[in-house]
Amino acid sequence: MTPTPTRDDKFSFGLWTIGWVGQDQFGGASREPLDVVEAVEKLSELGAYGLTFHDNDLFPLEATAAERTGQIDRLKGVLASTGVVVPMVTTNLFSHPVFKDGGFTSNDRSVRRYALRKVLENIDLAAELGAETFVMWGGREGSEFDAAKDVQAALARYREAVNLLAEYVTDRGYGLRFAIEPKPNEPRGDILLPTLGHALAFIETLDRSELFGINPEVGHEQMAGLNFTHGVAQALDAGKLFHIDLNGQRSIKFDQDLVFGHGDLQNAFSLVDLLEHGGPNGGPAYDGPRHFDYKPSRTEDYDGVWESARANMAMYLLLKERAQSFRADPEVQEALAAAKVAELGQPTLNPGEGYDALRADRSAYEDFDPAPYYNGRGFGFVRLQQLMLEHLMGAR
Amino acid sequence: MTPTPTRDDKFSFGLWTIGWVGQDQFGGASREPLDVVEAVEKLSELGAYGLTFHDNDLFPLEATAAERTGQIDRLKGVLASTGVVVPMVTTNLFSHPVFKDGGFTSNDRSVRRYALRKVLENIDLAAELGAETFVMWGGREGSEFDAAKDVQAALARYREAVNLLAEYVTDRGYGLRFAIEPKPNEPRGDILLPTLGHALAFIETLDRSELFGINPEVGHEQMAGLNFTHGVAQALDAGKLFHIDLNGQRSIKFDQDLVFGHGDLQNAFSLVDLLEHGGPNGGPAYDGPRHFDYKPSRTEDYDGVWESARANMAMYLLLKERAQSFRADPEVQEALAAAKVAELGQPTLNPGEGYDALRADRSAYEDFDPAPYYNGRGFGFVRLQQLMLEHLMGAR
Amino acid sequence: MTPTPTRDDKFSFGLWTIGWVGQDQFGGASREPLDVVEAVEKLSELGAYGLTFHDNDLFPLEATAAERTGQIDRLKGVLASTGVVVPMVTTNLFSHPVFKDGGFTSNDRSVRRYALRKVLENIDLAAELGAETFVMWGGREGSEFDAAKDVQAALARYREAVNLLAEYVTDRGYGLRFAIEPKPNEPRGDILLPTLGHALAFIETLDRSELFGINPEVGHEQMAGLNFTHGVAQALDAGKLFHIDLNGQRSIKFDQDLVFGHGDLQNAFSLVDLLEHGGPNGGPAYDGPRHFDYKPSRTEDYDGVWESARANMAMYLLLKERAQSFRADPEVQEALAAAKVAELGQPTLNPGEGYDALRADRSAYEDFDPAPYYNGRGFGFVRLQQLMLEHLMGAR
Amino acid sequence: MTPTPTRDDKFSFGLWTIGWVGQDQFGGASREPLDVVEAVEKLSELGAYGLTFHDNDLFPLEATAAERTGQIDRLKGVLASTGVVVPMVTTNLFSHPVFKDGGFTSNDRSVRRYALRKVLENIDLAAELGAETFVMWGGREGSEFDAAKDVQAALARYREAVNLLAEYVTDRGYGLRFAIEPKPNEPRGDILLPTLGHALAFIETLDRSELFGINPEVGHEQMAGLNFTHGVAQALDAGKLFHIDLNGQRSIKFDQDLVFGHGDLQNAFSLVDLLEHGGPNGGPAYDGPRHFDYKPSRTEDYDGVWESARANMAMYLLLKERAQSFRADPEVQEALAAAKVAELGQPTLNPGEGYDALRADRSAYEDFDPAPYYNGRGFGFVRLQQLMLEHLMGAR
Repeated sequence: MTPTPTRDDKFSFGLWTIGWVGQDQFGGASREPLDVVEAVEKLSELGAYGLTFHDNDLFPLEATAAERTGQIDRLKGVLASTGVVVPMVTTNLFSHPVFKDGGFTSNDRSVRRYALRKVLENIDLAAELGAETFVMWGGREGSEFDAAKDVQAALARYREAVNLLAEYVTDRGYGLRFAIEPKPNEPRGDILLPTLGHALAFIETLDRSELFGINPEVGHEQMAGLNFTHGVAQALDAGKLFHIDLNGQRSIKFDQDLVFGHGDLQNAFSLVDLLEHGGPNGGPAYDGPRHFDYKPSRTEDYDGVWESARANMAMYLLLKERAQSFRADPEVQEALAAAKVAELGQPTLNPGEGYDALRADRSAYEDFDPAPYYNGRGFGFVRLQQLMLEHLMGAR
Repeated sequence: MTPTPTRDDKFSFGLWTIGWVGQDQFGGASREPLDVVEAVEKLSELGAYGLTFHDNDLFPLEATAAERTGQIDRLKGVLASTGVVVPMVTTNLFSHPVFKDGGFTSNDRSVRRYALRKVLENIDLAAELGAETFVMWGGREGSEFDAAKDVQAALARYREAVNLLAEYVTDRGYGLRFAIEPKPNEPRGDILLPTLGHALAFIETLDRSELFGINPEVGHEQMAGLNFTHGVAQALDAGKLFHIDLNGQRSIKFDQDLVFGHGDLQNAFSLVDLLEHGGPNGGPAYDGPRHFDYKPSRTEDYDGVWESARANMAMYLLLKERAQSFRADPEVQEALAAAKVAELGQPTLNPGEGYDALRADRSAYEDFDPAPYYNGRGFGFVRLQQLMLEHLMGAR
Repeated sequence: MTPTPTRDDKFSFGLWTIGWVGQDQFGGASREPLDVVEAVEKLSELGAYGLTFHDNDLFPLEATAAERTGQIDRLKGVLASTGVVVPMVTTNLFSHPVFKDGGFTSNDRSVRRYALRKVLENIDLAAELGAETFVMWGGREGSEFDAAKDVQAALARYREAVNLLAEYVTDRGYGLRFAIEPKPNEPRGDILLPTLGHALAFIETLDRSELFGINPEVGHEQMAGLNFTHGVAQALDAGKLFHIDLNGQRSIKFDQDLVFGHGDLQNAFSLVDLLEHGGPNGGPAYDGPRHFDYKPSRTEDYDGVWESARANMAMYLLLKERAQSFRADPEVQEALAAAKVAELGQPTLNPGEGYDALRADRSAYEDFDPAPYYNGRGFGFVRLQQLMLEHLMGAR
Repeated sequence: MTPTPTRDDKFSFGLWTIGWVGQDQFGGASREPLDVVEAVEKLSELGAYGLTFHDNDLFPLEATAAERTGQIDRLKGVLASTGVVVPMVTTNLFSHPVFKDGGFTSNDRSVRRYALRKVLENIDLAAELGAETFVMWGGREGSEFDAAKDVQAALARYREAVNLLAEYVTDRGYGLRFAIEPKPNEPRGDILLPTLGHALAFIETLDRSELFGINPEVGHEQMAGLNFTHGVAQALDAGKLFHIDLNGQRSIKFDQDLVFGHGDLQNAFSLVDLLEHGGPNGGPAYDGPRHFDYKPSRTEDYDGVWESARANMAMYLLLKERAQSFRADPEVQEALAAAKVAELGQPTLNPGEGYDALRADRSAYEDFDPAPYYNGRGFGFVRLQQLMLEHLMGAR
């Protein structure tokens, strides 16, 4: 009954997701490492179209040049044989102890220089593999203690670093764009650029801001109690949704990285509706990869890992079906109209109207009576919400 | 022993703060309303330099022109007699049921037009009173249900509204600047522009973005689990800290609006340190009003209200003293150096260095050894934190 | 398509829910007060079987004896004419300023005595109306500041108060049982007995603990980030689920009091499954009232209020259908078995086995090999979760 | 200026705390393992009196009998030479993949049997070393998905397990008591017995409940947004504070395990005040070990580790000094009286008074006037809070 994914659905997975061995803060690995070739073959079989990875998912930080090349070649081979693509590459500036205070914003200048060089190498690799997007998650850029980090200086260093990268990519003609991935905390007590809003704002301070967008992750925004769909809508409004990380989170707690839709289900519904259709008044939709950044539960063996990969895609497709039926339902359309959702698409001012004309319109103010909004003029939002949930539950 | 405030400290209070009658979601008022004249006289006596207010703190939404003018004149009188100033005025688009779905972004277009007109009137008043900043808190701009609000359209309407206001202020030559006040939720389930990051990003999409900055509130950011000092540092970095709301919050929950410093004490310390001194590497400080936006506990009568007003200022001044002693302590300076806090002030690249030069520097990458960062090269952050807390506790 | 409620479903509503006028921390009422007679007639019409109320929902705290009696008689009249029952009555020790520091645990002894007397009166009324459960929500029992409340003394006073009430009810032969309703915070910064766990523990310190159980509320536990279904299971395990408050909450924030199911949908599913069927291994279910304690959104007029009342019942019934189909699906049963959910119903020890016998069983320890749990022996939990969600979404 | 710890202060540390190598969810170890002999020698030197440990801190789960004995002997040797004691031992049922679904409540019965046996061995060791308390943190007892765990059955299995352990300890005459350590989540999505309240309630369902108390941890309760001091007060009220884990946490997020006092400073103050002095009206204090369960930041090398160990003790002692000065200050005493904190120590009922006598006292109800609590009868809580903070800040 669940729909089957195809490559047109543009589902992609991080190598670190299906390859997560289950080691966490309180326990050792519960699964053996997954080879990249097997990973790609299996994903291909399941219907995914893309693989993404951090440099050090493919080869260790200490790899020799030969080891590095060997792994890259193995990846290329399986991409060729399966037709799977690499739409995005990202970089690991967080696992090795050298990055214990961050990469681009480490207090230690030699670490910052090392990080920059490491990313330059990695960008070459991303370009070589034909990736369109380069994601940067600065998971160690932050602090536990307020006195330990000069945030103003840290933002200056962040800017310095990514400005250089943008110059490099431009000069090389790589056609890569950057997507910053925000997260509020974990592993650091507080991470810089903690929400997609902060990242969008930071981007506006960059030299080549047009090359930078965001890669928001469901769980990361929800860890701050924020409405993910609202945030994505703001990113689309700004033309900055360059990539997206789909997963699941249940309330404000540690980063759960559940399967997409296994967290806040109704927010997942509204997200898929937005990504697929844009806003109800014709705002922009999203046409990039549907990228899953999740962790198969540590309780599972590899059968469970592949079940979980399947589940991500099944949830997306089911939600897409439900969103389509929601939009197509005349009763929903009527309820949306009653709730004046379309009226919000209409400008507040009349065509050509300025403040003088507005002031001259007595109906807008002097003759406008707010009283009927008491005990009347209800918006019908609860009815709309109930209709949405009934569609989500397949009850309509 | 607690320091005494003077007007040079630039302490200001919202009329709605000391005037909060204690009515909340679960109970009626516990205090009688406070007259504006008494409020200003008392604040003046306590050492504050400024009063701020929403239009409907001074006169009800339904006031006649005469009632409105009467109240404005009474305010002007007491400002003149006390020397208290009005550095900021703000607007109420949230209390009356007409705004139950918001003001600038209500689904109901006639409400949006009414809201715009109401704010235009209010801007005239702000200018008349010599305010420098016009704060906009969009507390009802948001939704409880994802289907009920087209966020892309809502942002377009928000933009339309504030663009018009900026044009108006410019044409009138008012010299007012706007400060957007973000909040993640309450009273709406999700509020648009939920954090200062989202507000900063939104500002960059405005026609006259130079006229717009933010008015972040301690508790509002902390309601999303965010580090307030970090956020303020990003706002200063962007040149957008136009105003600030000081108060206290204890963890992620409803908006507590406690006295400043009565919530997260160590974050209050780092905030005052930043506002007074700027970053340790010379980043910008803040010289605007130190504005308290809090609620005197419902358990208190007016004696307690004035105690609480005093407590806000006392906490700020105590924290300022502690921050000064922290900065002046040679042991702290040594610990900051050891933690390489100053090294973060140094650019990552050498003067004139581009990516080619960086790549040519083998010491940065090929010859750089990450190994010593394992089991060595500790940052000494815990020691620094302990020193900070000992200063905060007056133990040094 | 949505099922229609009948009285056998035992749906009940608080008078304060449908009667909430929309006044909140930041705005005035958006609806006019609802008369109790109209409330009962309408609820009856919609299929509810019960009405519940706080004393001061029916008559104000300052009511004369005649006013009080008048209102009670009106209620009795409409109960008689509609057949609606009053399965639960509760008491308001939180709205009037006299309770600004609590009722049973106010620092002010005369307030505590007044609160006790008020509740004694109210218990008589509950008994008179045939209620089986008397709910006590101590929303003002708590503090904002740690030094302001001696929690040990407060618990002693709480105990003193409810012990007296239990003695009274016993002596009077009322057949009433008490249900304590926990909440972590709001309106107080911290409320005593913040979770259902704390309430269950407190009950064990009471003189007649058998008369006391709990009335947990979906949103209250979720405001602390807790799994509501887990909590209810612990309450059922302890034989203490005397009553339940159904509503919706979205993440950790202010108390939203949304319609049931309009918050965390998957947790609502598992809750209904548990209440209706008990645990999968035959643990106890719940057969008391399905009581909705929610607030119709302030954006709605009375049409929306009644839509929201309907929505609560529709969500419950839909979830009940989905839970039934989940349990009945052979694939689910197979997946539950694979996940060893039934095996948890089996005692860990063999019949009659003590620690000596366990120690003698070498297969349990000396010969037990933990190694196969690495990279094997997956639990299949993700598959089970996906099956659950597909049932929830009506996709099976 | 900071006070120096002595053995009389009863400071103890987990071997896993100072020995934490810095491996977390997103990165590898940043420090090499710490040998137990060095750990004890160093702690002794710093002034600690006790070491605690999980079995697998001392020897790996797969250790041979000889390896196990070897390590135990080394520990005994250094205890003898330093005079350090082992007041508490605990067990690791969470690190190895065999426990991926828990120990006592794993769905897999053979795992449950293995867990029970492992703990029996460990209890023998605890007794051998003279420990008084056996802590059980059930970090893997829980679930991510509601359908995957029958919580009623899980609680039955938990009960079965610990009942057996209590019988064993009793029969052996070990004099050990058990302390359950609650945590809301992490590493599982939801952990059973999520707060100290839930644990206290569960204990009341045990066969030998007198042998069971709790070991609450600062950060664990604060991860649920709960007031730790309030919780500890309830545990003391129930006579169940058998042990305590001191550390620091900043708001609701992943488990930070910061140094004690480096999180919520004012709550740390009230906690130390309570532990040292009991409630202001003479409620019980705590005289067990002051046990630190924290993680030295991953940014630190071993110099930083020992700084952090020192910081824990320094913070406790500083807070103790501040709490003493707070209690000794006549102005505080006067403010406490004004806030009626002592009045809460007074029973609500007169000696011998029952409900009839209360009803006969017209001054309690009929003649009691609630009106003066409006706009009067303020409690002076803000003043008290400000006094507390001034003491905490060493400003008095």
